[in-house]
Amino acid sequence: MKVYQNLSVSDWHDLLKRPAKDVGDIEEKVLPILQAVKTGGDAALKRYTAMFDGVEIDRLAVTMKEINAASYLVEESLKKAIAKAKANIEKFHAAQREPVKTMETMPGIRCWRRSIAIEKVGLYVPGGTAPLFSTVLMLAVPAMVAGCAEVIICTPPQNDGSVHPAILYTADLCGVSKIYKVGGAQAIAAMAYGTETIPKVHKLYGPGNAFVAVAKQLVNREGVAIDLFAGPSEVLVIADESADALAVATDLLAQAEHGADSHCLLVTTSETLLGKVQEAVLTLVAKSPRRSILELSITNFSLILIKDLGEAMKFSDDYAPEHLIICTANAGMLAGQVKNAGSVFVGHLTPVSLGDYASGTNHTLPTNGTAIAFSGVSLDSFIKKVTFQEADLHGLSTIGPVVQVLAEAEGLQAHADAVSVRLNKT
Amino acid sequence: MKVYQNLSVSDWHDLLKRPAKDVGDIEEKVLPILQAVKTGGDAALKRYTAMFDGVEIDRLAVTMKEINAASYLVEESLKKAIAKAKANIEKFHAAQREPVKTMETMPGIRCWRRSIAIEKVGLYVPGGTAPLFSTVLMLAVPAMVAGCAEVIICTPPQNDGSVHPAILYTADLCGVSKIYKVGGAQAIAAMAYGTETIPKVHKLYGPGNAFVAVAKQLVNREGVAIDLFAGPSEVLVIADESADALAVATDLLAQAEHGADSHCLLVTTSETLLGKVQEAVLTLVAKSPRRSILELSITNFSLILIKDLGEAMKFSDDYAPEHLIICTANAGMLAGQVKNAGSVFVGHLTPVSLGDYASGTNHTLPTNGTAIAFSGVSLDSFIKKVTFQEADLHGLSTIGPVVQVLAEAEGLQAHADAVSVRLNKT
Repeated sequence: MKVYQNLSVSDWHDLLKRPAKDVGDIEEKVLPILQAVKTGGDAALKRYTAMFDGVEIDRLAVTMKEINAASYLVEESLKKAIAKAKANIEKFHAAQREPVKTMETMPGIRCWRRSIAIEKVGLYVPGGTAPLFSTVLMLAVPAMVAGCAEVIICTPPQNDGSVHPAILYTADLCGVSKIYKVGGAQAIAAMAYGTETIPKVHKLYGPGNAFVAVAKQLVNREGVAIDLFAGPSEVLVIADESADALAVATDLLAQAEHGADSHCLLVTTSETLLGKVQEAVLTLVAKSPRRSILELSITNFSLILIKDLGEAMKFSDDYAPEHLIICTANAGMLAGQVKNAGSVFVGHLTPVSLGDYASGTNHTLPTNGTAIAFSGVSLDSFIKKVTFQEADLHGLSTIGPVVQVLAEAEGLQAHADAVSVRLNKT
Repeated sequence: MKVYQNLSVSDWHDLLKRPAKDVGDIEEKVLPILQAVKTGGDAALKRYTAMFDGVEIDRLAVTMKEINAASYLVEESLKKAIAKAKANIEKFHAAQREPVKTMETMPGIRCWRRSIAIEKVGLYVPGGTAPLFSTVLMLAVPAMVAGCAEVIICTPPQNDGSVHPAILYTADLCGVSKIYKVGGAQAIAAMAYGTETIPKVHKLYGPGNAFVAVAKQLVNREGVAIDLFAGPSEVLVIADESADALAVATDLLAQAEHGADSHCLLVTTSETLLGKVQEAVLTLVAKSPRRSILELSITNFSLILIKDLGEAMKFSDDYAPEHLIICTANAGMLAGQVKNAGSVFVGHLTPVSLGDYASGTNHTLPTNGTAIAFSGVSLDSFIKKVTFQEADLHGLSTIGPVVQVLAEAEGLQAHADAVSVRLNKT
């Protein structure tokens, strides 16, 4: 842990930096994979799955039989928890629907905007030791609320060629039945270009390792929409003397368990709290079964003493954290001042894990300081907002001369003519 | 003009394609410019301005004196037209403000979302023969409605080192006073990295030539947000026998006057109309003072006879045009079925030029088929939507066990602990 008792201007500046990663060598590895899938289709996918996941897959698509069987393999307590999380996520995202409001910007000129679902979306669910059904919830629920016509999931198969039952159960519960056993850059290529089995989609979503992230960036350059550029996860905790040191320490460690490259910062006005958090982190790590990993992770923790909460908020806005926890007596007031953050957890009783799973907000959030200009995934991520306008004769007669003056001043005569031919005729 | 009387499947497929552009050689030219501005700052900007715009600039920032003088140089009729357009654009974009709705996703778990302006935004206004004050309106008005704290404009100087008064007048009217005389890739670099004079911004907006577009893409890869990947402009007109051939022909020519690479398509159910439009286009071109340019442009026009309006809508959704004009008797009904388009112009009296200037909708729209997954510029483009959540003790007690089950099933113990340390304490 690095402790800053007197934050200098250069410390401040250094702390804002995220380590730049050179992905040049990953691009070099990913590009041939994209190309091979583009030309080789399913055969290429199966070859890469054998190579990278160590398993031969005959059939890429998960069968209805597999999906039905999964339901028996998931414990009831987990099913109930998934259902509750789903209900909250659905409620929060459904409230983001924007009704069509038609307005007359001037008499006879009606304008409106309609939210239209992106027709085909592809969700990537990473593999790994634990089944990331929360990723399924956070992407499939808003896709369904938006009304996307085709929602598909790609996820790497386990060693035995199956997909974890909790993933299948959650996908099915969310109404997604097109699930494909393929992971990594090859999965991104499959959804971006389409193969014999896997349909080409219009937008790609989901987290993943560096290969997946780079593959998403590369297909994005070719015009395929993606949700976010994802980097390592981050938490910044603002705390005053009213905060509980053990809770804060656990929040930092919860972030650290996402990976050794996570960023965990405490910014506090209380020297006492800082000391206690430092102590609590060490105690918790010493007791942990994952001690050896955590000892490495906590070397990246930054514990910062700051002169007042105004400065703390300023630091946080400069840093633009993915997750911001405000553990202060006046948390609600400070929340109202936040300028840059992905998602904000207000008060002493709101750990990030609530939002990671079940509060209803989305956990797919901007990292790497991009919260300065980007939002997290929401219903907006699954729709386009198309504008419409309709003039009647009165409207055209009023706005027409305005448009003609403007078009002619910009040297666009045919733009002006498009008005006059209509007015002359009527 | 290409005429399709019997659209085959392969014609359909070919018509959807936009010519792919290899920007590799432009990237090679733009990269050193970006690098030079990053390291050389203002001096590099002045060097490139001398080189590309042929003018020596002492002072990059437009002075208040220049801005005030501009007001005397713009004709009253143009001022009035600009004011009217501004009022409509403001009205339509202000209505896009989303109120904060706090909801309980379950008792004791309050969630909300707040729209927060992107603090610093940079608008690029291209140079050229005519002053593009409409670009200023379409970008500066929503930036101001959003409440962006710092709004700057970069635009190339004219031969005499000045900026066209109509640009300065419009910028000032919109409340933008930081205007810099620099264009091209060097302007994009200046706003992305910052120089002694030009502040670094968080998001870049605006159209431009291939150098500007490529520069935006390159800085976007480094994490700077941009509005859209802009390609050549497009219009698709759906018309039935009720349409006026002269109006349709003028709409196609209005699109063509944006440049020889514009895409102009008519999809009609009426063979008679098709013939009349073809004839009208030829007549208008023959009479035009810009005949030689237009004769080149119209070789790209595609006039398509289609069997019914259902097929026409299907073709349009497949094509995903930037601008869609619906000139049919049942235009309102068809408008309700649109799936993919940037902006839609409904009925016989609504040419695209209304939206280009003054109806109130934004004219910065997705091109190149990206309307399939992207929206045009709107208030959303100038804000982030940050989510918030706050649990009370009752809420935490209810949601806590749900989160614990989910976190443990995903193997994230500290996520579960972050709940239990809080519940145990209370």
